Amino acid sequence: MRIVLGVEYDGTSFCGWQSQPNLCSVQDALELAIKSIAEHEIRIHAAGRTDTGVHAMMQVVHFDTEVHRPETAWVRGVNAFLPETVRVIWSKIMPENTEHDEFHARFSAIRRSYQYLLVNAPVAPAILASKAGWYHLPLDIAAMQKAIGYLLGEHDFSAFRASECQAKSPIRTMLRANIHAAGSHVIFNFSANAFLQHQVRNMVGALIYIGNGKNQPEYMETLLTNQDRTLSPPTFSANGLYLTGVEYDKKWNLPDTHRQIDLVL
Amino acid sequence: MRIVLGVEYDGTSFCGWQSQPNLCSVQDALELAIKSIAEHEIRIHAAGRTDTGVHAMMQVVHFDTEVHRPETAWVRGVNAFLPETVRVIWSKIMPENTEHDEFHARFSAIRRSYQYLLVNAPVAPAILASKAGWYHLPLDIAAMQKAIGYLLGEHDFSAFRASECQAKSPIRTMLRANIHAAGSHVIFNFSANAFLQHQVRNMVGALIYIGNGKNQPEYMETLLTNQDRTLSPPTFSANGLYLTGVEYDKKWNLPDTHRQIDLVL
Repeated sequence: MRIVLGVEYDGTSFCGWQSQPNLCSVQDALELAIKSIAEHEIRIHAAGRTDTGVHAMMQVVHFDTEVHRPETAWVRGVNAFLPETVRVIWSKIMPENTEHDEFHARFSAIRRSYQYLLVNAPVAPAILASKAGWYHLPLDIAAMQKAIGYLLGEHDFSAFRASECQAKSPIRTMLRANIHAAGSHVIFNFSANAFLQHQVRNMVGALIYIGNGKNQPEYMETLLTNQDRTLSPPTFSANGLYLTGVEYDKKWNLPDTHRQIDLVL
Repeated sequence: MRIVLGVEYDGTSFCGWQSQPNLCSVQDALELAIKSIAEHEIRIHAAGRTDTGVHAMMQVVHFDTEVHRPETAWVRGVNAFLPETVRVIWSKIMPENTEHDEFHARFSAIRRSYQYLLVNAPVAPAILASKAGWYHLPLDIAAMQKAIGYLLGEHDFSAFRASECQAKSPIRTMLRANIHAAGSHVIFNFSANAFLQHQVRNMVGALIYIGNGKNQPEYMETLLTNQDRTLSPPTFSANGLYLTGVEYDKKWNLPDTHRQIDLVL
């Protein structure tokens, strides 16, 4: 039987999503908590493997078990065994012996969404210290808005790809890319079929090198054309990055798989 | 020479504002950092002495020193010696040998403002685990709006006063008391000339006992009339409480002494 979960986490005190021998990851914490309910070893598959310090408003995962439990047990039961910085928001038991058995949190995902929260102020945020990126000089939001448009559509994103990235192809399709600024807070919204390793943080880094006047908006087009990570601006902090949603075909009949940042402290 | 600072902090890892022998408080962290710049012992006075786990978007403090430093040294210099969860936002050096010497962060304050952030959802927040209160059952916001109105004006707030509270009088004047709800977030706004110990958390506790249907809105009036803490609902969590501003006479010519929690839509 396949169980799907929607999960929220604060990535600050974890070594990223992916399981590690010393059990420091979100995946480890979640597998241990589910094991306490299922009473057998669990292997979870996630829609997106977030880096150290990256948060998720909505991560989608699945696992298999032969144990029958009510859907609430996979939420309230598992939550009782989790640290308070990880919470299962909903669970869905896939009907057995139907095509729903084939749902895969990662391979069935059509689109991922990320938000990046940046505090643009002379002094770094204290309350959001581990929950936002920070840039101290004034940013030209209009220039960044213009630049971010170049990212839309299908591109080779090699300029924004970590050297350790294991994806077979650097080609991705960016379906949404925009910026909202309110007071000292800047929120970047990105949706794509999938993302390369460090892609959002590298795109934010390049946008800041445009917002601060170091480069013109057209610089973004040059980076895409050059396809050379070593010529691109540095990776921006993981602190402000949030996985906010994963889109699946409606046929899977899942609860809501998107949750935006709606509050800034 | 009197120096005034605007300070933001995440109260999660501190034992409240007030100095303790084991130096676990925000005041201790700030006094140590200022000492590193001033090169002598420092005693800070604050507008509001927040409890363990309570945050400040804007705390106002002052201290005295004979050392001359540029205003930026009291911001960037002090911040370099602070943990990342405490930040000086601005500094103001009071002109010497004028009536400005008499400014006192606590005694000159005319009004304090607090916001309380509540997550009203079946599952507790993970990312905001230490930054918000949480209530799992649906709340009747309209009933709470009606109830909160009874708190406006001058009242004996003994019903909402901690037994350890050392204030001479339980009489306070509530100048603002309202509620904003957006999605699963509920924000309570309170401004008064001053607050009793635990007053906001006790008022929020009583409002939740109205929102959940246990009591009618008029119950708030009964509590005020009874003036008996032992008959009132329990104190709500410190996690969601934020000191957001302190008002002073314009003659002091201070930078902005208010900073609200923002909702991003």
